[in-house]
Amino acid sequence: MTTHALQDAVKAVRESTPLVQCLTNTVVAEITANVLLAVGASPAMCDTPEEAGDFAAIASGVLINAGTPSSEQYDGMRAAIAGATGAGTPWVLDPVAVGALRQRTAFCLDAVTRGPAAIRGNASEIRALAGAGSGGRGVDATTDVASALDAARQLAREHDCVVAISGERDLIVSAERATWLRSGHRFMPLLIGTGCSLGAVCTAYLGAAKEAGISAHDAVLAAHAHMGAAGGVAGSLSAGPGSFHSAWIDALYALSAEDIERLVSCEEVEA
Amino acid sequence: MTTHALQDAVKAVRESTPLVQCLTNTVVAEITANVLLAVGASPAMCDTPEEAGDFAAIASGVLINAGTPSSEQYDGMRAAIAGATGAGTPWVLDPVAVGALRQRTAFCLDAVTRGPAAIRGNASEIRALAGAGSGGRGVDATTDVASALDAARQLAREHDCVVAISGERDLIVSAERATWLRSGHRFMPLLIGTGCSLGAVCTAYLGAAKEAGISAHDAVLAAHAHMGAAGGVAGSLSAGPGSFHSAWIDALYALSAEDIERLVSCEEVEA
Amino acid sequence: MTTHALQDAVKAVRESTPLVQCLTNTVVAEITANVLLAVGASPAMCDTPEEAGDFAAIASGVLINAGTPSSEQYDGMRAAIAGATGAGTPWVLDPVAVGALRQRTAFCLDAVTRGPAAIRGNASEIRALAGAGSGGRGVDATTDVASALDAARQLAREHDCVVAISGERDLIVSAERATWLRSGHRFMPLLIGTGCSLGAVCTAYLGAAKEAGISAHDAVLAAHAHMGAAGGVAGSLSAGPGSFHSAWIDALYALSAEDIERLVSCEEVEA
Repeated sequence: MTTHALQDAVKAVRESTPLVQCLTNTVVAEITANVLLAVGASPAMCDTPEEAGDFAAIASGVLINAGTPSSEQYDGMRAAIAGATGAGTPWVLDPVAVGALRQRTAFCLDAVTRGPAAIRGNASEIRALAGAGSGGRGVDATTDVASALDAARQLAREHDCVVAISGERDLIVSAERATWLRSGHRFMPLLIGTGCSLGAVCTAYLGAAKEAGISAHDAVLAAHAHMGAAGGVAGSLSAGPGSFHSAWIDALYALSAEDIERLVSCEEVEA
Repeated sequence: MTTHALQDAVKAVRESTPLVQCLTNTVVAEITANVLLAVGASPAMCDTPEEAGDFAAIASGVLINAGTPSSEQYDGMRAAIAGATGAGTPWVLDPVAVGALRQRTAFCLDAVTRGPAAIRGNASEIRALAGAGSGGRGVDATTDVASALDAARQLAREHDCVVAISGERDLIVSAERATWLRSGHRFMPLLIGTGCSLGAVCTAYLGAAKEAGISAHDAVLAAHAHMGAAGGVAGSLSAGPGSFHSAWIDALYALSAEDIERLVSCEEVEA
Repeated sequence: MTTHALQDAVKAVRESTPLVQCLTNTVVAEITANVLLAVGASPAMCDTPEEAGDFAAIASGVLINAGTPSSEQYDGMRAAIAGATGAGTPWVLDPVAVGALRQRTAFCLDAVTRGPAAIRGNASEIRALAGAGSGGRGVDATTDVASALDAARQLAREHDCVVAISGERDLIVSAERATWLRSGHRFMPLLIGTGCSLGAVCTAYLGAAKEAGISAHDAVLAAHAHMGAAGGVAGSLSAGPGSFHSAWIDALYALSAEDIERLVSCEEVEA
């Protein structure tokens, strides 16, 4: 990723205010909406079976987060995926706890075949989704990021999508490319929803990138950079995860595209 | 509205601690409850079909917020409207995204005929509810506040209620009166739930005003003044929407009735 | 409770990171998760009928909070109680508004017979659960804590569990022991979810105590001490309930076991 592409992606989101439809779990719905507003997107938590499909056709992007849906929300997710696919709207799959729990494992293994633009999860989830592991305990990562590189490459090639693995360092993988990103702060995993809202921000960046001619790989990498750079700034200002929450939202809003590029470090994986 | 009426309404809420039943979307439930506590009301998020009707008969006021309900929540809303109507409990309709999405449009067009004490929305929503527009994209206002004055007057007269239009300036409309309110801060639309919790605060103010002999128009105006005055104070203390959130809740709690009156500006519309 | 037991319990949670499954109301799900992370536990909000029973068998503890469940969530709660009981996982009942509303009263009166390790509520709720009162208006305490001592003793002996009554002072009751705890701050009841997340923290402490050989009474008392001590510290740093929220989460994270013991005062009730 060139400096140019990262900064372009940040600016594209702020200039186009992508409309991001979120079908996500109720625990993280509020922080997800606030994070989207802070990065410059417009959130809409439209997830009912009757409305989700129609909305997916007008949204800039759709997030499907499989954390603890009710049966109606599962129906809404299926409608949204169909609506997004029909309209060419990019959508992102966050396979929360896939592999560890039966119902969502079945849902995610089906969803991944329906054309997501990106998949975002921790190493356990990415491995389980590729059939290479049995999942973790809930949302915890129980394997390290590097161990999921092969699983991510397999998913990226099979489904023609970008796969992002979150951890102490993040790894963004597409069919022909893999990039390490170093950013963030140790308080981030202590605030519920930082991972889930990252899936939403990837959706916003993919929606804006499509219009701006930025690659999906660069869009997902820029989304991670924005979130992690803000985390680093906020962590240095905070006494604990409570004050971190406020400072992180402020930093997501205030950091310039140039700040974000300066605050992270990227490294391409040699093939 | 006289200075007296505004201050009386603020004091009436703090002295009577109105019990506000909220049937609202899950994204904003937490901030709505915290805002109600900060202004001096007592929140109860009771929305199931089995309990919502009984509760509406003992509540001081009921909020019906139509943002993305499940089918059970729709049933709960119908039960709560029936319970409130039967018991003479004032209730407020927030027609989130009416006009833009089919299911909630049908629900809102029916609900408005059932006797709300007030309706609160943005200009797109008020126009769509009156049959004068096709709605916006989700919760964004896509038309300016003044354009909805005629629609608001029509709704206010037809349904004998107060209609509040939120925007850069707010407009409070009843059958024989319309009042502009200038307050707030540019960070408010960047925090999810400021609009939805305004509907809840209108409900609290209507519940308290009924006991205190304050008019419904003045109650809704005072609710907007309290929220906007706190927004202005908080905005001046904040680096971004994250720190704004905390400062706004603090200001809702700390501002005196006199502070609130001093911090806003009202203007009656000549008939 | 000896100083040793309180400090041991705090350390046991931080060292073992108990996995706490929460079946709770959507209003407080986010703050509950953040509080659990701040005290050193790992939250999982797994509440669907299909997954809740399996998860309860692997969790360290299960919280059943009866605040406004959907019919699916009631089914999930029944599955989780069965799964926890079968696996020997300790579970906590928070009987929100039992006695005041029919559906949850019926649920709670049944649940209490199924072997909870602890029950946490306000005085109205504990009295209603024991058949000694008619409940309050929603989650407000309308009777004082001491008035529920006999009801708590009856429940503790009949169901072989710990009963915690929350109020200006807290009272922890088991079959042969009752302990007053003085801690907290007047801002705590102004932040939604402080009571509900206390139920979750009791669950975390019970899960960790089981492994560490600490009694259930001491575990529940230590959970209340941790929450209240952090409340006192945060209150002294805050201008209102908004800044209190952040400061409280920070203090939950930062206070040492020794700090917590120093900041609260306990008194055993003579039999």
